[in-house]
Amino acid sequence: MTDSTDHLLDPLLDRLRAAVGDAHVLTDPADVAAFVVDWTGVHEGQALAVVRPGSTAEVADVVAACHATRTPVVPQGGNTGLVGGGVPDASGTQVVLSLGRMRRVRDVDPVAGTITVDAGVVLADVQAAAAHAGRLFPMSLGSEGSCTIGGNLATNAGGTAVLRYGMTRELALGLEVVLPDGRVWDGLRGLRKDNTGYDLTQLFVGSEGTLGVITGAVLRLFPETPRHATAWVAVPSVAAAVALLGIAQQHAGAHLATFEIANRQALDLVLAHLPGASDPLVAPSDWYVLVELAGAATDRGLDDALEAILGEAVEADLASDAAVAGSPAQRDALWALREGISEAQKVEGATLKHDVTLPIASLAAWAEAMGPVLECVLPGVRPVTYGHVGDGNLHYNVSAPVGGDDDLRAAAPALSAAIYDSVAAADGSISAEHGLGRTKAAAGAAYKSDVEVDLMRALKRALDPHGLMNPGVLLPE
Amino acid sequence: MTDSTDHLLDPLLDRLRAAVGDAHVLTDPADVAAFVVDWTGVHEGQALAVVRPGSTAEVADVVAACHATRTPVVPQGGNTGLVGGGVPDASGTQVVLSLGRMRRVRDVDPVAGTITVDAGVVLADVQAAAAHAGRLFPMSLGSEGSCTIGGNLATNAGGTAVLRYGMTRELALGLEVVLPDGRVWDGLRGLRKDNTGYDLTQLFVGSEGTLGVITGAVLRLFPETPRHATAWVAVPSVAAAVALLGIAQQHAGAHLATFEIANRQALDLVLAHLPGASDPLVAPSDWYVLVELAGAATDRGLDDALEAILGEAVEADLASDAAVAGSPAQRDALWALREGISEAQKVEGATLKHDVTLPIASLAAWAEAMGPVLECVLPGVRPVTYGHVGDGNLHYNVSAPVGGDDDLRAAAPALSAAIYDSVAAADGSISAEHGLGRTKAAAGAAYKSDVEVDLMRALKRALDPHGLMNPGVLLPE
Repeated sequence: MTDSTDHLLDPLLDRLRAAVGDAHVLTDPADVAAFVVDWTGVHEGQALAVVRPGSTAEVADVVAACHATRTPVVPQGGNTGLVGGGVPDASGTQVVLSLGRMRRVRDVDPVAGTITVDAGVVLADVQAAAAHAGRLFPMSLGSEGSCTIGGNLATNAGGTAVLRYGMTRELALGLEVVLPDGRVWDGLRGLRKDNTGYDLTQLFVGSEGTLGVITGAVLRLFPETPRHATAWVAVPSVAAAVALLGIAQQHAGAHLATFEIANRQALDLVLAHLPGASDPLVAPSDWYVLVELAGAATDRGLDDALEAILGEAVEADLASDAAVAGSPAQRDALWALREGISEAQKVEGATLKHDVTLPIASLAAWAEAMGPVLECVLPGVRPVTYGHVGDGNLHYNVSAPVGGDDDLRAAAPALSAAIYDSVAAADGSISAEHGLGRTKAAAGAAYKSDVEVDLMRALKRALDPHGLMNPGVLLPE
Repeated sequence: MTDSTDHLLDPLLDRLRAAVGDAHVLTDPADVAAFVVDWTGVHEGQALAVVRPGSTAEVADVVAACHATRTPVVPQGGNTGLVGGGVPDASGTQVVLSLGRMRRVRDVDPVAGTITVDAGVVLADVQAAAAHAGRLFPMSLGSEGSCTIGGNLATNAGGTAVLRYGMTRELALGLEVVLPDGRVWDGLRGLRKDNTGYDLTQLFVGSEGTLGVITGAVLRLFPETPRHATAWVAVPSVAAAVALLGIAQQHAGAHLATFEIANRQALDLVLAHLPGASDPLVAPSDWYVLVELAGAATDRGLDDALEAILGEAVEADLASDAAVAGSPAQRDALWALREGISEAQKVEGATLKHDVTLPIASLAAWAEAMGPVLECVLPGVRPVTYGHVGDGNLHYNVSAPVGGDDDLRAAAPALSAAIYDSVAAADGSISAEHGLGRTKAAAGAAYKSDVEVDLMRALKRALDPHGLMNPGVLLPE
């Protein structure tokens, strides 16, 4: 920040301090540092200030002050996003609005099956509050200990429970949103059925902070599923995993809760970098599936169903071996293998992340064909593939050749283009659950029709005519 | 139509005829009649013409022609809506765009669990195409033999399967929409996960033809549920029904597919007017519940679960008697009692329809309190109450006092105001599943905050700046 802008901006900083208190307007570079770089380390910006309001009214004050001075606002939750959607650009003109102080669970209604929360409540705390009332909030992600529900809503987060319960948008019944001009929209209705006009909640979910700031939400709760039957299954190929999915759906129906895939590269990284991790199977396999059935206390048939699934899979040569969890600790250990991949890959070195959906029928052929293509672009590149195969969603991440971090960085545009072109040709999506953020805003627009981009820009202009909310995120400027 | 407007409008009619063929532009009053009055008979308008395009390209041509001449367009599906959202106003200046000729099932993909259809496919035909491929399209309504999937999507229809599968919006994966200026948005993607920008599909679903014309859709399919366990249960009160719902959820979990309520008045009308209907129970009861569990061929425990539910209900004085369907024919007979109510009430005479949601915890007290209030407004009035109690949704319809149709019409505004005020005070919704249409556009706005109405108007202006799409529907002019 230069002296001249300092002078010009004093009135805004004064107003922000009046709104939230001096202690919650951060401008010292040491205080600001953690809020301006994202989890991947790829996006590092500068902030005019980081403001930490403690209530919806304070958020409204902050946004109104920014609106009056035409100052851009970057809403931020737990700052665990993977596409740079929650950090400021390099201009130093943007205010980061951190929701982290808004951590109140406002209400839990087990009869209606709803929970009402502040946007800054950490996902694990939402899960815990639901469990305390004897209900399940099913959303589950690797970052659940630090991501916030407001961020989950703004990005329409996915995770490992989508197969059964859907994306975040399917869990959202109503929202409270501070609009770009500082007005508050109170849409905190917990009704399953409310057909009275455009669905504003669904418009704000997944809008990545570009249409307003989500400050509160009413979310759906479900009956608890304390019974689990869990297995780590060695499968020969993605095609075998997809076939196994069909068998699992047939035997387990609505009890099928998890169906995750990982390749051997992914498991190797976890075994190398996750303390205490061990391979549950003796012989190595190219691919693995984590399958879990979940049910109520009265659902006593889960183990039998899992056994039937695995038996049929082995008989059809779709699985070579499987480790079935015999205790909660063993279940946790199997889950740790899956949940540890992202962190282990970060420890290993440079990674190029992709988060793609393919139509399930094309998934195996696509994954089969992609490896050789990437090997042509960058010899020695290591596809670390894992994800939610039940949803057609692969985290098709690419680790550098051993010792070749710089080579990966140089080849990144060509690698991503090869992947995205191929996904688009197969009618897939270039962002299954991470959103577009800054990383993919341009690509998102490039792979869409002009009509679709025009529609999105029209919505953006309608709700944020001055372009103040998270500019450069979701839509390219 | 006067001679003078005839003269002025000839160029438009010529262009419409060129677009869809002379035979599909109806202007003769006899041909037009069925398209300008709604199912309830409450809304009767006039049309400049009724146009029946046979393809998306023809719809685009028609809409572009109307856009060029600033002619309002009223999209219409099966014309089974209950709030006048699909018929023109009295001005005679609006073109009715009927999708009824677009009846092609474009694709069924049982592996991906998707079906792609033209907007004009009748709901029952969507169900049949899914069943032909061994899959379930769960949406089910009384009008399924004549309503179209495009109308279901435009109005975000509900029905008897919402409890388990959600409203229409939860079944929609992607749409094809002709925009108000005649451009086509192709959003026909069948992906469960696609986080690349604002969810345009969810914006168009439930927009009641005010933002564009839905011409095609990709919808979700589910595993078939050929096994059913069905009972018609006599319960003493709405409170008992809600308590029984809790028991049913606990025992049946995800197998609970239907939980509908009806009062004795509703049953009496069906017994009086539905040929062949008979009371399955000996002693009369004030209230009834239709409960159904559904499962796969391998789910052999449904009958036991139903027996356990009913046993616990009788023991807790939540049910006095029950008829369990012992054959498909008996099941059909129980369903006919529920599905016949709307038609029977129409035969009986004047009806004032309300379609409200209450938070489930308040439902019983609300229903208890409402009867005496209405009796004060119009002595002898007969609340014919039924609906989807599992969703908190009651069709709180009011039949005229015997012989008092005119009295009901005179008292209608006061009766509806009493109901809506009470619903709003209890944080409910004045339209659970029927939408706002013309009937409730003004009420919808009146019970919303100014901020919410402003947001909706901003969206309408952004997508339809000339206000040509279904003006007067959803938002008051």
